[in-house]
Amino acid sequence: MPRYVLKIDYHGGPFHGWQRQQAAVSVQGQIEAALRGLEPDLDLVYGAGRTDAGVHATGQVAHVDLAGDWDPYRLCGALNYYLKPDPIVILAIARVDDAFHARFDANQRRYLYRIRVRRQRLTHDAGLKWHVKPALDVAAMEDAARLLIGTHDFTTFRSTQCQARSPVKTLDRIEVTMQGEEVEFMLTARSFLHNQVRSIVGTLERVGAGAWTSADVTAALAARDRAACGPMAPSEGLYLTDVIYAQDPFADWAYG
Amino acid sequence: MPRYVLKIDYHGGPFHGWQRQQAAVSVQGQIEAALRGLEPDLDLVYGAGRTDAGVHATGQVAHVDLAGDWDPYRLCGALNYYLKPDPIVILAIARVDDAFHARFDANQRRYLYRIRVRRQRLTHDAGLKWHVKPALDVAAMEDAARLLIGTHDFTTFRSTQCQARSPVKTLDRIEVTMQGEEVEFMLTARSFLHNQVRSIVGTLERVGAGAWTSADVTAALAARDRAACGPMAPSEGLYLTDVIYAQDPFADWAYG
Repeated sequence: MPRYVLKIDYHGGPFHGWQRQQAAVSVQGQIEAALRGLEPDLDLVYGAGRTDAGVHATGQVAHVDLAGDWDPYRLCGALNYYLKPDPIVILAIARVDDAFHARFDANQRRYLYRIRVRRQRLTHDAGLKWHVKPALDVAAMEDAARLLIGTHDFTTFRSTQCQARSPVKTLDRIEVTMQGEEVEFMLTARSFLHNQVRSIVGTLERVGAGAWTSADVTAALAARDRAACGPMAPSEGLYLTDVIYAQDPFADWAYG
Repeated sequence: MPRYVLKIDYHGGPFHGWQRQQAAVSVQGQIEAALRGLEPDLDLVYGAGRTDAGVHATGQVAHVDLAGDWDPYRLCGALNYYLKPDPIVILAIARVDDAFHARFDANQRRYLYRIRVRRQRLTHDAGLKWHVKPALDVAAMEDAARLLIGTHDFTTFRSTQCQARSPVKTLDRIEVTMQGEEVEFMLTARSFLHNQVRSIVGTLERVGAGAWTSADVTAALAARDRAACGPMAPSEGLYLTDVIYAQDPFADWAYG
């Protein structure tokens, strides 16, 4: 059966995360339901990253085996038709080699975390950013972020539910930017532990607010203890933006 | 009675526009209802601009007379409490002279219009931008926009319902910017006709898509005929961002 790879954009708000569940609406489940509109005997869809409930994506990647020899553009149009009115769209589709695996072949993943700093409640960006009230010191957050870059035991910064075999991960980059009331974090790594990005951002926010020092972050990392972590940032500010492979499977996609 | 001026941010989606109506929920009506939580015998709230149904604001301004001698920070907190859970927040409040009028004293108004150009449906920014599919030529839109700057009879670009005495207005600026899939228009004038911004943006989009030339825009303006206008851009991309006075009434506001 030919294998297809999908690039997916979704608003995480209405979904209980990426992963299919028995009694809850998931992004994976909705995509599988849409595919069954085309091929009733569909196999499963395999995602590159399991986003939690409420977490967004602008560039999730998944693969699926289909019986039909589909033109990628027609398949994309048909799938997006069946996905209405859910806030999930397929941005691009490509045929790939039978050996391609969305999760295991990924070389790098990138997450964006968005904060809006202001006193009053959010209106237009409610559900799209973490609403933080105290002014944040970006330089202090950048200094603290630098302490987390590289290869570390991230036990402090992972969920106690995390199923990864090892807590040791290599964080390639953390970029912190501020523009007006918007603060953004871009984190890049080969792979992340469960809740790692939200745990790191929640800790850096404490540094930005002046409640923690860089030394506190160093101590938290060294503690290798979940209880040493800052409060976890909420799901609504987190976006899976990129999953990167040795060769871009969507390089031939011509639509916007 | 002391007069207060309010700076207001709202998501236009749930409201039938700014203006109070008998049988529909309006932004003005919700703010008046919140104020009645503080002062049951409240007079009316006067807005600087009447935004249509679905139109957003990040900097609407309004004034109101209250019986009490309110501290602006406390008044702001109390009002925002009563406005929950509506997507309306008061960003700032100041005491002003009894002669101040939010609408008649405004020297300039600024509107932002946001477009997202992509083939697939919008997810995160649904309801916040106009979703346009064809690629837009920004240089062509800038050229056409220049034809509309200055003092003109804008009959072509105003609603047939417009109540302004004269169709002659002076458009100070139109700035067009593009960043990735986002196209933004910033329009500045002393005042605007009803539907003027959406009529102009709808016409410029036709130029950007290649369906209209600059000469078509010149002819449409010269026609002084509503029927000569391009299709009107939808309300969901429009934001009233600034109302400018000779002296900024919020200059002393210290909160974010």
